Amino acid sequence: MPLGEFELIARYFRPLDRPGGRPRADVALGVGDDAAILRVPAGQELIAAIDSLVEGTHFLPGCDPASIGHRALAVNLSDLAAMGATPAWALLALTLPAADEHFLEPFARGLRELADAQDVAIVGGDTTAGPLAVTVQVLGFAPPGAALRRDGGSAGDLLFVSGTPGEAAAGLLLERGADGGLVLPASLADADRALRRRFLFPSPRVGLGLALRGLASACIDVSDGLAGDAGRLAAASGCGARIDVESLPLSPALRAAVGPDRALDLALEGGDDYELCFAVPPGRLAELSGVAGEAGCSLRCIGVLTPEPGLRLLRAGKILPRAAAGYDHFTNPG
Amino acid sequence: MPLGEFELIARYFRPLDRPGGRPRADVALGVGDDAAILRVPAGQELIAAIDSLVEGTHFLPGCDPASIGHRALAVNLSDLAAMGATPAWALLALTLPAADEHFLEPFARGLRELADAQDVAIVGGDTTAGPLAVTVQVLGFAPPGAALRRDGGSAGDLLFVSGTPGEAAAGLLLERGADGGLVLPASLADADRALRRRFLFPSPRVGLGLALRGLASACIDVSDGLAGDAGRLAAASGCGARIDVESLPLSPALRAAVGPDRALDLALEGGDDYELCFAVPPGRLAELSGVAGEAGCSLRCIGVLTPEPGLRLLRAGKILPRAAAGYDHFTNPG
Repeated sequence: MPLGEFELIARYFRPLDRPGGRPRADVALGVGDDAAILRVPAGQELIAAIDSLVEGTHFLPGCDPASIGHRALAVNLSDLAAMGATPAWALLALTLPAADEHFLEPFARGLRELADAQDVAIVGGDTTAGPLAVTVQVLGFAPPGAALRRDGGSAGDLLFVSGTPGEAAAGLLLERGADGGLVLPASLADADRALRRRFLFPSPRVGLGLALRGLASACIDVSDGLAGDAGRLAAASGCGARIDVESLPLSPALRAAVGPDRALDLALEGGDDYELCFAVPPGRLAELSGVAGEAGCSLRCIGVLTPEPGLRLLRAGKILPRAAAGYDHFTNPG
Repeated sequence: MPLGEFELIARYFRPLDRPGGRPRADVALGVGDDAAILRVPAGQELIAAIDSLVEGTHFLPGCDPASIGHRALAVNLSDLAAMGATPAWALLALTLPAADEHFLEPFARGLRELADAQDVAIVGGDTTAGPLAVTVQVLGFAPPGAALRRDGGSAGDLLFVSGTPGEAAAGLLLERGADGGLVLPASLADADRALRRRFLFPSPRVGLGLALRGLASACIDVSDGLAGDAGRLAAASGCGARIDVESLPLSPALRAAVGPDRALDLALEGGDDYELCFAVPPGRLAELSGVAGEAGCSLRCIGVLTPEPGLRLLRAGKILPRAAAGYDHFTNPG
């Protein structure tokens, strides 16, 4: 017997409005009516983002449904992280070919585990028949004027990135395997596992975004490649950017898997990292030292915002050519 | 030259954050950053809904893109209408096979015209490559405790529907035409046009929802068929429902197009009407008389909430059999 839309919602999605099993006090009405009723805390601004994952574009056919559920929320939480917002609620629009419990159970679990970890209540949803795709919309809060933006940087501000970009792109190549991707020898099994995990289960930098409030002058999440996203932050701030490629934090796993040159390329142009790239005025660098520990991730200075527009990549003092311009869904092949 | 994602957003979607050409004062930051920054008016609850339209499930291939843009917002505004909420903001996630300006221009226009009419700012978005689908997420306001819900009805409350349900389902049959649908003779050209328009450009009953605040005991929007949706309102309210099928408001166009029996069937079981079905305590019927005029649509009493659970259809005092159970995306064929 096929599981109908209404039972499906009841069984898998209704429990998602209680992160960690407890209802959020600011949810007056969750999943099950025409809309959710929510209470924004007094004196807070509302921060809202939306992002879709589409089979064949953002994940490969046959991908672990738990990863799809995790990533659909993670990519949205990463947008809130880039704004320095505290996540609160999410809505889910799920399109799938059939109400298949072998998909729905792990999908809902992957979503729930991240929602629980970030205290996010899934307060509404829509399920429909069609090609597999997930859209999540997240809502969070920030005190008035405190949210981070892309456009607040100034020439001279130092440019930082969190974590080790490029690993997720290598993980996607490993997921592709012999089919246009990458296959590693058994001796690199640990790196293989770690890199795939970085693609399949990215950690949105919510704590880092909160710690950067009042400190970073501009911030963006690295979803489309560090070079492109850093360039977008610089352009929004009315600046250019210079990245010293020798300062890029390339992880040992990434270098072991693809070698140093391709590691650099993936760190600059690979997507799906969901790290934060941000600018800090030089006079405030001292305040940054506590942030990395507080946020539980490494931070690396990779360059500077410049008065002249455009993005320049420097190695040993020389400007490198750069062909690509960050991931673009309609001009780059998926 | 293909139009990239970033130019596409700038050209078609960035202007959408100014309904009627004016920025909304409560949008601190709209399209173009990682997330929007919004200001919920003090003392209001936030009402949030999400809904997707997928090609082949919600609209036919080759459908006028202006209709897709209109409906993607309309079905969401209908959810806010059912809650008695004042719409304010929307976010758009658009998946399309290619950045085709012949699609994007009319799509954005259809979306903009309805957004302008309802003073809704499109404050964020995501565009991605994949099978054609649109997800819209809307946000609105209601005073604390004032939002309409499905679960507030009591046995004895009278059941109403707005407008003339069934017309949209007939419009979809006409759009299908000879391919499993309906073809009308030239003498019925006016009915043909009117019915198609009801499917392609539905009017969300936002004004009616606002007028019903403090008066209706329960409310739901009719998206999946009146019988099924009335049954869901009744069940959420811990009641059953009785619908007197002879009282259903069948439009002359609908009766002319499909005959009285099928008109009844479409009014009960056809989807996509986006009318409101609501319950009113009998002691408050007098207050309803002004509402229809205020909201600009007709209202019809079609039955009553009953103490015994389940949905009963009555004709000339006899219970009719009812096979279907409202539209279900996973058990009914699209």
